[in-house]
Amino acid sequence: MASPAPSTRERILARGLALMSRSGLNGVTLGVLAEQVGMSKSGLFAHFRSKESVQVELLAHMATFARARIVDPAMRADEGLPRLRELVRHWFGWAQRAGLPGGCPVAAGLFEFDDVEGEVRNKILEMEGQWRRLLIELVRRAVELGHLRRDLDVEQFVWELSGIYLGHHAAHRFLRAADADARAKTAFDALLARALPAIRGRSVARRAPSRRSRHRTRNRPHA
Amino acid sequence: MASPAPSTRERILARGLALMSRSGLNGVTLGVLAEQVGMSKSGLFAHFRSKESVQVELLAHMATFARARIVDPAMRADEGLPRLRELVRHWFGWAQRAGLPGGCPVAAGLFEFDDVEGEVRNKILEMEGQWRRLLIELVRRAVELGHLRRDLDVEQFVWELSGIYLGHHAAHRFLRAADADARAKTAFDALLARALPAIRGRSVARRAPSRRSRHRTRNRPHA
Repeated sequence: MASPAPSTRERILARGLALMSRSGLNGVTLGVLAEQVGMSKSGLFAHFRSKESVQVELLAHMATFARARIVDPAMRADEGLPRLRELVRHWFGWAQRAGLPGGCPVAAGLFEFDDVEGEVRNKILEMEGQWRRLLIELVRRAVELGHLRRDLDVEQFVWELSGIYLGHHAAHRFLRAADADARAKTAFDALLARALPAIRGRSVARRAPSRRSRHRTRNRPHA
Repeated sequence: MASPAPSTRERILARGLALMSRSGLNGVTLGVLAEQVGMSKSGLFAHFRSKESVQVELLAHMATFARARIVDPAMRADEGLPRLRELVRHWFGWAQRAGLPGGCPVAAGLFEFDDVEGEVRNKILEMEGQWRRLLIELVRRAVELGHLRRDLDVEQFVWELSGIYLGHHAAHRFLRAADADARAKTAFDALLARALPAIRGRSVARRAPSRRSRHRTRNRPHA
């Protein structure tokens, strides 16, 4: 297998990412991708040995691409709840903002590859697992810092957060609903409200943090 | 176009439904379906004029199929909250229980057809809308009967419920997580808890209904 020049490889991955977003992982075939990049199918074969290897490499490329747009900005926020909020703010709708016209390929892949065994499914599984562990880590840190309550079921919290993300993706991308962002924000605020520390036996559910975050400040309401 | 004998048509739709569940809507091509049914592609053409018309008819067939398994049993429960609970209980995981090996084709279609304009996308939009309106109607009735609180944002409730469904679908079908049902149940109970009527300024969030429902009784906790 020839070692590709970085520029050609980058061009293939960039075009492939847009194609994957628009047409789903299964829409990325060597024929269609070759056409998009403006090279012959055999030329593309010098870089990737199969449709599956293109898909897997595109997913890996997407992970780097998404990390720079979602995780890196969140890491600049204060630890705990502020960082979790920042991550969610950059996560929901990230693909659209990043110029990927068709939404998040991993979200789509969860439905496209549920029954398709092989390296593509395994790659999505790996990426989903990494993402879930990152979320769990951030939520745990918010618990440790006392921003969220000690007895929070962290995995359940992350499970429900992921459901809100999928709901937002479907509302935004499929239904093209104008209120998708607002609905997701309300759902996330409600999830957070249940997770805030109790004060004298009552939840502080209706207190300020969720309102403050609307102004996108980076203060630390519970630190 | 020939008018098909019911038995042939039924056989095509039954095989097509399993194929659609397993391979996604895009996996239903005239060639693959013809092979599954054991007829020639031109024989199939006598029944359906295009891939899209097969997909649309299969979706319509699925709606009838799903209604009998989700809605009909729920309608036998008491109106309001008991009926809503029954519907959710039959909804989550319905495809698997109905012997559709690959999960709910509409859930998958929300991700598969977000960018694919045409009659299939329109059919999924129509079905999603009908389903959402049914859920809204059931939740509204529970509000009217005083089972859920008067000031509930019914559309937000249904939006979040749909997110839980998608989260369950991904956890169950893609991740094959053993705890998918339990996680979805906890999430639904928490959504319900926020929606229960307040008693003297406090929510009755931690009271009996969600526990009772675990025993699958059809009592009416708030009637």
